[in-house]
Amino acid sequence: MIKIGVIGYGYWGPRIVRNFHAAEGCEVTLVCDKSPEALCRAKKAFPDVGVTTELSDVLSSPFIDAVAVITPVRTHFGLAKAALENGKHVFVEKPFTATADQAEELIDLAESKNLQIMVDHTFLFTGAVRKIRQLICSGALGNLYYYDSTRVNLGLFQHDVNVIWDLAPHDLSIVDHLIDRKPEAVAATGQTHLNGLENLAFITVYFGGGMIAHINVNWLSPVKVRTTLIGAEKKMVVWNDLEADEKIKIYDKGVQVNNGKGIHDLLVSYRSGDMWAPKLDQPEALAEETKYFVECVEKNERPFNDGVSGLRVVRILEAADRSLKARGAPVEV
Amino acid sequence: MIKIGVIGYGYWGPRIVRNFHAAEGCEVTLVCDKSPEALCRAKKAFPDVGVTTELSDVLSSPFIDAVAVITPVRTHFGLAKAALENGKHVFVEKPFTATADQAEELIDLAESKNLQIMVDHTFLFTGAVRKIRQLICSGALGNLYYYDSTRVNLGLFQHDVNVIWDLAPHDLSIVDHLIDRKPEAVAATGQTHLNGLENLAFITVYFGGGMIAHINVNWLSPVKVRTTLIGAEKKMVVWNDLEADEKIKIYDKGVQVNNGKGIHDLLVSYRSGDMWAPKLDQPEALAEETKYFVECVEKNERPFNDGVSGLRVVRILEAADRSLKARGAPVEV
Amino acid sequence: MIKIGVIGYGYWGPRIVRNFHAAEGCEVTLVCDKSPEALCRAKKAFPDVGVTTELSDVLSSPFIDAVAVITPVRTHFGLAKAALENGKHVFVEKPFTATADQAEELIDLAESKNLQIMVDHTFLFTGAVRKIRQLICSGALGNLYYYDSTRVNLGLFQHDVNVIWDLAPHDLSIVDHLIDRKPEAVAATGQTHLNGLENLAFITVYFGGGMIAHINVNWLSPVKVRTTLIGAEKKMVVWNDLEADEKIKIYDKGVQVNNGKGIHDLLVSYRSGDMWAPKLDQPEALAEETKYFVECVEKNERPFNDGVSGLRVVRILEAADRSLKARGAPVEV
Amino acid sequence: MIKIGVIGYGYWGPRIVRNFHAAEGCEVTLVCDKSPEALCRAKKAFPDVGVTTELSDVLSSPFIDAVAVITPVRTHFGLAKAALENGKHVFVEKPFTATADQAEELIDLAESKNLQIMVDHTFLFTGAVRKIRQLICSGALGNLYYYDSTRVNLGLFQHDVNVIWDLAPHDLSIVDHLIDRKPEAVAATGQTHLNGLENLAFITVYFGGGMIAHINVNWLSPVKVRTTLIGAEKKMVVWNDLEADEKIKIYDKGVQVNNGKGIHDLLVSYRSGDMWAPKLDQPEALAEETKYFVECVEKNERPFNDGVSGLRVVRILEAADRSLKARGAPVEV
Repeated sequence: MIKIGVIGYGYWGPRIVRNFHAAEGCEVTLVCDKSPEALCRAKKAFPDVGVTTELSDVLSSPFIDAVAVITPVRTHFGLAKAALENGKHVFVEKPFTATADQAEELIDLAESKNLQIMVDHTFLFTGAVRKIRQLICSGALGNLYYYDSTRVNLGLFQHDVNVIWDLAPHDLSIVDHLIDRKPEAVAATGQTHLNGLENLAFITVYFGGGMIAHINVNWLSPVKVRTTLIGAEKKMVVWNDLEADEKIKIYDKGVQVNNGKGIHDLLVSYRSGDMWAPKLDQPEALAEETKYFVECVEKNERPFNDGVSGLRVVRILEAADRSLKARGAPVEV
Repeated sequence: MIKIGVIGYGYWGPRIVRNFHAAEGCEVTLVCDKSPEALCRAKKAFPDVGVTTELSDVLSSPFIDAVAVITPVRTHFGLAKAALENGKHVFVEKPFTATADQAEELIDLAESKNLQIMVDHTFLFTGAVRKIRQLICSGALGNLYYYDSTRVNLGLFQHDVNVIWDLAPHDLSIVDHLIDRKPEAVAATGQTHLNGLENLAFITVYFGGGMIAHINVNWLSPVKVRTTLIGAEKKMVVWNDLEADEKIKIYDKGVQVNNGKGIHDLLVSYRSGDMWAPKLDQPEALAEETKYFVECVEKNERPFNDGVSGLRVVRILEAADRSLKARGAPVEV
Repeated sequence: MIKIGVIGYGYWGPRIVRNFHAAEGCEVTLVCDKSPEALCRAKKAFPDVGVTTELSDVLSSPFIDAVAVITPVRTHFGLAKAALENGKHVFVEKPFTATADQAEELIDLAESKNLQIMVDHTFLFTGAVRKIRQLICSGALGNLYYYDSTRVNLGLFQHDVNVIWDLAPHDLSIVDHLIDRKPEAVAATGQTHLNGLENLAFITVYFGGGMIAHINVNWLSPVKVRTTLIGAEKKMVVWNDLEADEKIKIYDKGVQVNNGKGIHDLLVSYRSGDMWAPKLDQPEALAEETKYFVECVEKNERPFNDGVSGLRVVRILEAADRSLKARGAPVEV
Repeated sequence: MIKIGVIGYGYWGPRIVRNFHAAEGCEVTLVCDKSPEALCRAKKAFPDVGVTTELSDVLSSPFIDAVAVITPVRTHFGLAKAALENGKHVFVEKPFTATADQAEELIDLAESKNLQIMVDHTFLFTGAVRKIRQLICSGALGNLYYYDSTRVNLGLFQHDVNVIWDLAPHDLSIVDHLIDRKPEAVAATGQTHLNGLENLAFITVYFGGGMIAHINVNWLSPVKVRTTLIGAEKKMVVWNDLEADEKIKIYDKGVQVNNGKGIHDLLVSYRSGDMWAPKLDQPEALAEETKYFVECVEKNERPFNDGVSGLRVVRILEAADRSLKARGAPVEV
């Protein structure tokens, strides 16, 4: 029975506690938050779980095997480090850390202590991403051309990070999971309108071989959009995560170029066939992920969404931030 | 009665001829194309219109008052220049010219000859753009934050220009029409996958005062999208040009920031009210534009979509192209 | 503090318990179900609530003020009667009873005992129905012409009632709430395909004054639809309950007939203006309804969704069933 | 070369003329309308076509092989009869005639004269209906359960027929084409609100073997809907004719009933799989139909949309009208 302490019971913490609480093979021993009101809510929802305002109760408890860090980004490093130093596995909310250096230090520390790190890239556990990965790996899509995501809504403005650090980790972790290439360079543009932090941004990630990713994130959109286009050689995908059913549509559409003698002889021919929406397995992604965390801790096995995958995302976030300050000038990753 | 010669009867030419043919106060005297098949089609559709394969028949005819240049971009300059030199007003397909220098030369020439140039920025004559402009000018939206357009579909690949020169002139002319600020810098990213010309691109235009425009253009999308989000202080707009009715939706939504003492005291409050879809006047935009051209020629008055507005668009296109080659490095306009 | 016993913890029971559990001024004392597994689930979700398999524990408990009957329709009468005879107020799942006679008997019994009956017509507590009622009552829509609802999906097939008794009570209670006229006649058609009970049906209710309601219910539809059109003189409404926001759209559209001399001189003119989607208050409807039940019991006041309103719905259901057997022959209500 | 005279150049006539004009193997010799304005428009659009206000010019011309009757329903019989008596094939707008008796007389007359009748059931020539027919005939859908169509919009109010005669012929001809069973009975309800003719109606057609069709037609809807659900044993179809692409969606969904001992032991199990939108051939349906008419006349072959198919539709319309007057009482066909 893996015993878990959860630090942070704000917006996302309750969902984490609920899922670890419901998972087999583990129990939530202690929930820690500096707000007594938050702890009251936790106690009401989970009467059998202990609560505390003291970090050390979680971090140095001999009865806790793993710590979930569900706090603002700037605190991830300190909390995760203390947990690892105290011999605990860690589950860290995305983005992993505020800097790549911090991520590297945590990875090394976990390695030296033989502990596991999992970064909460929940989307990797959805039926939609699993199906897209399967389509790519099976070769059904052919050579990938682009990943173009729009992830916009009204709010929730963060106070300590801009919209890139808030929303882009979702797409960056998905792209990292789907694409078997290293990013070469990042260009990001954006603007701040209200509280000094960029509230909309447009990120381009250049991969090798003509693959490009584009991510449109915005806290100030009148409507919520969660749509990703994936362009590829043989088939193309539209993923609309707001659809109740039919989140993934696969289009048998494409373009072929037949080289002629000169540039004006190029013949571009279009192919347009059926559309197909595969039925997705739709368990709750977070339930899958917490279950997987428990398994990885039990077997002391490295998860695929480990610290290193978290680091790869943070590197792109850092590059995007630097590019953003330079109005789009490309930054190598 | 204004007499018009039309050069180019390919994809767009027939629509231009049809609209000038139907407009009051003008007649289409001659259609010129190098393809005899195209001229056959023209003759069948408009039996009362003359046809020719000889440019000079149009350019030097003493019976023609104005010439419509509906040909590939690279030919605009030469044809428009010849027409102006022969004392004819010109109506030029978008984008105006292949370079800003060419545009400037044509503007000077028209000025010296006391002739009019109109650039075919058709969208400015739609009910949707007219309504948005009215909302902005009346102050209903308040301070503008961003314009974010997605204009993607499968095909039509062009052979001589990339997707930026093909699709972005629509949004750039709209932005130029709606926003009362000068562009400061352009950053563009993109990729070529098939014929050596970029087939998808993401363009950011920085305006002063926190206003930013973003344009997503793509010839290789499995689905057609024509959606623009306009973020503003008081109200926000979603324009979906593929809707039969209700193309424009106005959301009484927004965000307010109340400054506290420190950064963590910022209170961001959200406002969410009704949505409203005003009935639009929806005459055919091109019919409005051709009618307006006839009026401008008759009165020898400068149209608002004149050569100078065409030049402003071309300057951004040139900057975008330069930025694209530099993977997003910003280029001043 | 009103003490409530809940009978039936199947599909809908848990939601009822959760809402009474969360409501102010009442507590759920006992949950009764014949299935021990159901009671286990109840105990796990609400550790502070008692459970029992014995009906008499609820029906004759001196500590219980009100009984919620959340069981199959055929059992409503017996359970509600026993509860009323034992001096308890009752909250009954829709449809109120299996026959109009049963409903009348319960109403008389409650009256004689000075007890309240509430029928669970949850939709009447939604923001959408409240807004539509307000639009009608304020005269904004003008004279009503029709209510046309489509309520179809795949499953859940019931074993003891046909699709009319399962799905139509929603629309019939809404229509009863919205329309200030008595039904005159009902015509219903439909078909059984699988288990001997009609799984799709089309119900027409004739009201006086040209008002007509039509309800399309279907357990065997490949897609879920919850759309209602309301036609009226001044404005018309589309209510799509599956929309996350903008459930209600109000169209400034209509038709006017100007009488000419003969039938062929009639001039029908169309009016088409803006569309408007008012922001709705969207609390959980069931939370509103359970709160209202507690208030009505506390003050011993008659709710608007009382036994008589439940009876009016049952009368139409009975008429619809009779018409259905006669392939649409109209039945007076 | 088949020579065609067209009678009636109102709303639909111009489309008929355009298609016959463009079809191979025929020419439109003469257009007849009592309105000189209509003839002016015809002359402007088709300068090579003759025009006349005299019916006899068309009906008794020795140079005309076939007559298209594109006039109000009440005139179909007289015009078609005169054309047939003058030895001309006829193409008649839907619905075929105002009564079944008229239809029978025309069929007999054509038979005796060895002439062809085609009724303009345009939808039978669409890619959507062709695909659905193919799915049914190939057995892909399995046993059919229901056809449920919603065909509503604002206007166009007719002056001489109610909404059933205006809109329902589309669905009735489609159902006649798709379903290999005879209608047994018709029940129809509806209401008149404005000019004395029913402007909304709900028609149920009972076929044998559990198959049922339901058709919702309405001239007074704030939104346009053209959606048909087709329920069947193996797969189910949603046809949304307003979609630009993906008009037809095929759902691998269904229900199975496993008989148990008693009614409460019935196990209904649900099956839910992929959705699939086949690419449709989408030529203009009317172009296909006019081409087919020319072929049938050339070869003097009976079309599948002949007078008899038109008669079957008229019989249901008559039955629906009778049922409508009796508020839904079923009428045998």
